[in-house]
Amino acid sequence: MNEVYLDNAATTFPKPEIIYKKLDYLNRKEAFNSGRGAYKSSRIAYETIEKSRRALKKLAHADSVVFCSSVTEAFNELIFGLNISANDNIYYTPYEHNAVMRPLKRLSEKTHCHLIEMPLQKNMEIDLQKLEDNFLRKKPSYVFVNHLSNVTGYILPIDRLSALTHQYNGKIICDGAQALGLIEVDLEKSKIDYYCFTGHKNLYGVFGCGGIMCRGELEIEPRLYGGTGSDSLNLKMPERGNLRYEASSPNVNAIGILETSIQWLMEKNIYEHEKNLTTYLVETLNQIDEIQLHLPSSKSHIAVVSFTVEGYKSSEVAEILDLDFNISVRSGYHCCPKIHQYLGDTESSGTIRISLSYFNTKKDIDRIVAALEELLV
Amino acid sequence: MNEVYLDNAATTFPKPEIIYKKLDYLNRKEAFNSGRGAYKSSRIAYETIEKSRRALKKLAHADSVVFCSSVTEAFNELIFGLNISANDNIYYTPYEHNAVMRPLKRLSEKTHCHLIEMPLQKNMEIDLQKLEDNFLRKKPSYVFVNHLSNVTGYILPIDRLSALTHQYNGKIICDGAQALGLIEVDLEKSKIDYYCFTGHKNLYGVFGCGGIMCRGELEIEPRLYGGTGSDSLNLKMPERGNLRYEASSPNVNAIGILETSIQWLMEKNIYEHEKNLTTYLVETLNQIDEIQLHLPSSKSHIAVVSFTVEGYKSSEVAEILDLDFNISVRSGYHCCPKIHQYLGDTESSGTIRISLSYFNTKKDIDRIVAALEELLV
Repeated sequence: MNEVYLDNAATTFPKPEIIYKKLDYLNRKEAFNSGRGAYKSSRIAYETIEKSRRALKKLAHADSVVFCSSVTEAFNELIFGLNISANDNIYYTPYEHNAVMRPLKRLSEKTHCHLIEMPLQKNMEIDLQKLEDNFLRKKPSYVFVNHLSNVTGYILPIDRLSALTHQYNGKIICDGAQALGLIEVDLEKSKIDYYCFTGHKNLYGVFGCGGIMCRGELEIEPRLYGGTGSDSLNLKMPERGNLRYEASSPNVNAIGILETSIQWLMEKNIYEHEKNLTTYLVETLNQIDEIQLHLPSSKSHIAVVSFTVEGYKSSEVAEILDLDFNISVRSGYHCCPKIHQYLGDTESSGTIRISLSYFNTKKDIDRIVAALEELLV
Repeated sequence: MNEVYLDNAATTFPKPEIIYKKLDYLNRKEAFNSGRGAYKSSRIAYETIEKSRRALKKLAHADSVVFCSSVTEAFNELIFGLNISANDNIYYTPYEHNAVMRPLKRLSEKTHCHLIEMPLQKNMEIDLQKLEDNFLRKKPSYVFVNHLSNVTGYILPIDRLSALTHQYNGKIICDGAQALGLIEVDLEKSKIDYYCFTGHKNLYGVFGCGGIMCRGELEIEPRLYGGTGSDSLNLKMPERGNLRYEASSPNVNAIGILETSIQWLMEKNIYEHEKNLTTYLVETLNQIDEIQLHLPSSKSHIAVVSFTVEGYKSSEVAEILDLDFNISVRSGYHCCPKIHQYLGDTESSGTIRISLSYFNTKKDIDRIVAALEELLV
């Protein structure tokens, strides 16, 4: 019985065949130290990295892209680099991942800035009315918004949150870990100040590359100090440009693959495929009495479906699915600490999460639904 | 005319065929999110990572290994995590790379700790006598020592520096970026407190993995805050263990490849091969009048040879070697800011650096020597 992999929110698997082939090519032909030497191979590696940078800019209408090794790194860079102080009000949604919440918590310990959780309506969506009241009383300095929840698949209304934030002269920072590559991201249109992303999820790249996309240039305190292959006698980081934030040997493979993967993405209609699958999955699971789905009420939803099963701990269900049916899902709290007070899933120790990719099919869904039905007989 | 690649200190190239094959395998079969799911694929990825951790521990006689994305990250983690304050005396050798010097510089700006450069003798080696005088007057808190210089190939006397440091109750931190995999590293025997390394140089792995090896467990303030796939409702990082420092999705490929590459290393006599090549290279270059070598006087030297050519900027020589002879070397200051006052190479804007790997041959050396002779005709 082949594995049905339904943990694509952790990392998409498999990747397209063209990605495996290109990775092998990059390893064998272009894994040189970009920007450190002036010779041909080093220049080719440099150009490969810049191609990916341009592809990302185009994909998200960003003015600049700074690479680092993961989206977690990207958030640490931003959160500790923005010069936030005790006077600042930092808003976050209950959908934020620990890649945002843990650095924010640490920041608040160090700076005593105010962390404020945004209110949700009963339907699990952001309560924009209440939020505006909050903004009126405590002006937002920075607003952290997960673009696509890794727990419920909710697509958050970043355009409206952005407009509201800017109305109060705040800046908005989006977590695009789950979103980029799957749903539309347009920094220009949505007026997003900073957008953090990862390569190994819906961009179908590999571990080792994340980054920050901006309108304008990134202008923060660097977090990673080291060699840049430039101005070696200077003990300070470069004053401006990508190199200010990109110390250390660039990861040609993990960055370079993104041009190829973005090109691949463009040729597919991944959104439509996953939207259809998600609808099918929700409809099918809805027919099982013992299953409670944890969905946003709006149609702004895709790819991720969390549920609990009456009488079971979530980890028990995941274990049975793995051992008896060779189906891989994740269970628990999904590194997302704040949303569970709303989901009311602590009795079952979190949710069982199904997360889809372009490579999942209706058959995969039929397999997990049949397994759940068998489990509940 | 095929490329002769002599910039292995930047990154070794090529890698052994077995590495390319294993990388392809890891990408296709094991690139899951380790430690995030409890299902089989995730557990296999976890085990692959732990195998590499065990292989590194064994290789260097380390009690613990913490992974991060590069040796630069490793030094940033250590330097900003050690709780260094204004009272601390931080010693460094003039051989330190900007991955050490730039974070140290930033640290001293923030904490006003004292940065003290260790004295060299005329022969470019550490002046242990003078250093002891320094230690007597200003007790060392931390001592940063490059194990193998990326500029001159000098193998620094880490055992003696370690003994001296511990005599004054300081701790020693080694930069093993160039050393690990090529020369003996034994944390137990040398009593090294912290040893930072990278995967993509003499370990013959790929970009995306570095780390800190310790005697005992690493106990510092974490630098990277984020999800650990554990204890998700807790906004703090785990109190102890590797996860305290290993937030974010683990890079299964870049970490996992190291078990294979270390096994490969064990089967070769790389040290002997490169030592012979280095001796041949030095002897041959020594016969060209216009070439000045920048070597340590002792025999503690391997793999890296820096030189300048009378009447030429270093970058001019490197450019000619690239364009006219398809030979790739690096020129300039090599991200090493302090050593050049001793080398006296600023007139030629740094050195031309040849750096070898297991895959270089006498023929490669004959090619560059012939090219240099032609250039000087």
